[in-house]
Amino acid sequence: MNSKITGSGSYIPTETVTNKDFAQHVFLNDDGSPFPLPNAEITEKFYDITGIEERRYVSDDLLTSDIATIAAKNAIEDAGIDPETLDYIIMAHNFGNVRKGAIQTDLVPSLAARVKYNLRIKNPKCVAYDMLFGCPGWIEGVIQAQAFIKAGMAKKCLVIGAETLSRVVDLHDRDSMIYADGAGATVIEATSEEEGIIAHETASFTYDEAYYLYFANSFNKSHDPDVRYIKMHGRKIYEFALSQVPKAMKSCLDKSGIPIDAVKKILIHQANEKMDEAIIHRFYKLYGQVPPEGIMPMSIHKLGNSSVATVPTLYDLLVRGKIENQKLHKGDVILLASVGAGMNINAIVYKM
Amino acid sequence: MNSKITGSGSYIPTETVTNKDFAQHVFLNDDGSPFPLPNAEITEKFYDITGIEERRYVSDDLLTSDIATIAAKNAIEDAGIDPETLDYIIMAHNFGNVRKGAIQTDLVPSLAARVKYNLRIKNPKCVAYDMLFGCPGWIEGVIQAQAFIKAGMAKKCLVIGAETLSRVVDLHDRDSMIYADGAGATVIEATSEEEGIIAHETASFTYDEAYYLYFANSFNKSHDPDVRYIKMHGRKIYEFALSQVPKAMKSCLDKSGIPIDAVKKILIHQANEKMDEAIIHRFYKLYGQVPPEGIMPMSIHKLGNSSVATVPTLYDLLVRGKIENQKLHKGDVILLASVGAGMNINAIVYKM
Repeated sequence: MNSKITGSGSYIPTETVTNKDFAQHVFLNDDGSPFPLPNAEITEKFYDITGIEERRYVSDDLLTSDIATIAAKNAIEDAGIDPETLDYIIMAHNFGNVRKGAIQTDLVPSLAARVKYNLRIKNPKCVAYDMLFGCPGWIEGVIQAQAFIKAGMAKKCLVIGAETLSRVVDLHDRDSMIYADGAGATVIEATSEEEGIIAHETASFTYDEAYYLYFANSFNKSHDPDVRYIKMHGRKIYEFALSQVPKAMKSCLDKSGIPIDAVKKILIHQANEKMDEAIIHRFYKLYGQVPPEGIMPMSIHKLGNSSVATVPTLYDLLVRGKIENQKLHKGDVILLASVGAGMNINAIVYKM
Repeated sequence: MNSKITGSGSYIPTETVTNKDFAQHVFLNDDGSPFPLPNAEITEKFYDITGIEERRYVSDDLLTSDIATIAAKNAIEDAGIDPETLDYIIMAHNFGNVRKGAIQTDLVPSLAARVKYNLRIKNPKCVAYDMLFGCPGWIEGVIQAQAFIKAGMAKKCLVIGAETLSRVVDLHDRDSMIYADGAGATVIEATSEEEGIIAHETASFTYDEAYYLYFANSFNKSHDPDVRYIKMHGRKIYEFALSQVPKAMKSCLDKSGIPIDAVKKILIHQANEKMDEAIIHRFYKLYGQVPPEGIMPMSIHKLGNSSVATVPTLYDLLVRGKIENQKLHKGDVILLASVGAGMNINAIVYKM
């Protein structure tokens, strides 16, 4: 029994934050000393590497579970299913609900339970749980849905990725410019056709890499030492991703038995445009090729890195024809891939 | 392909907190008014209903992921497996790592990634993720392990339940006396025998029940309004559990095809002794019977309610002969059941 996406939805937050909006920020080094460049130069370099011009933040009244609900509603409507027939709601996130201005994470009840409550689903046999797996959480949720379907435990699953990283960034850290908010969702259903998920691959690198993305104090040493923010060792992540993601993608594609030339699009987690380009080049190099023009649709320029929401949002925009010069067709083989905290990597070979 | 537990481990925290230790607490009503009974009477009534004489807290230096690691090591040693052969580490919790004296939850990297790091497992194919499902999280993790095994995606899974509720209790709330810390873990392996997990059942009740267990301010209105604690509507949970848990247990047992008389032990989540007794009575009443003497091993008297850690710890104590007058034998059919935040209920019919 295979599984395929029968509907998708997303939520693009309403607050646009441009690179210029960081002009007045006081950027510091990790030791608390002033960062030795003017902000205009910092944001220009930032743009050159990441490709991020602007990112979206949710309005002050919204929580992760709220935007997850909107994306979920859109996906259910797109799939045209009765939400009461869902067997699972799998909700990927990494920071829970963090209210504007507060620092505490609210995880009880689970965000999946809140989404189910918001959707007014009555059926108790619809099992709602949260899954934490770093940025690759949504792809991993899809793989878990596939497991439930293969095991005969489910026929229809709603898999959501939603995050409000704007609530956990250190404003004194240049890396704060990368992060964004967003929500994406898909309905996954059993199919007897030769379509949908053809192969998948997951790896958790923790031996040396577990703390490449972590939670720590502000670079501003006068801040409350009990308050922590999302932090990363950017250089290490870059090197790690370049060395491991192409291999995982190849392992997944080879498992599928589908030749590289048949791959029409690669939907990769959007954390850094230069990094994504380098990953794709290394991936094609493993097959002695160079990446075809337009193989990698990008959303990072306007949406930044919204963690678990990035890939499902990119998918949703793509199928709805909302990414310029990019289209998906019935029968197309696409590759989904992600890398993030854990450090986790995963990939799916998917036939539309 | 069936799945069975091939090893178990637990960690009993070292700090014993007796009911007398609450003698100096200032208990309040939810509106902030003084609770109109002396503490001696409060704790006596509390004991009469819940059966809790004392509970265990971790020492100040320990985090949830630390005690999860200890329980995991014990389970791996008990199973006699090479940890590098694990396909999954599934870590159930609900509050992440909360340091003593701090209020922020640390979830990045996931606790599963930290446990894998602590265990010094190198194999990247061992997938480590966190799962949030209220108190029934560990049982649900076992069901997910079963799904991965049935789907051909795994042969060996480590499923952990660990929590440090002592870090999220409101000291002005009488319900704080229920909560405890703990960690339990099991290794789940594929088996071709007619043993292990025979049937399972899960339900998420969110329509009216989503916020029966929740996160909210202290009863002491002078406390920081941005700081929240674990809270519950005890009466509603009691009524809900009595009405739904016996039905879910029956549905699970009937699915297994095993008669009620063959059930040797019921390992139920320990939140309240009177409630557990009432659940078991209703369960047997559904079969026109009364519960046999000694059917329900209890750990609540000395360990309190350690959330996701309760059932795996109870199982571990039982198989190691550490619960007085209680023994498990090869071939015994046992029923595992839990209820908690979500509100979620689950059950497993298990053959030793």
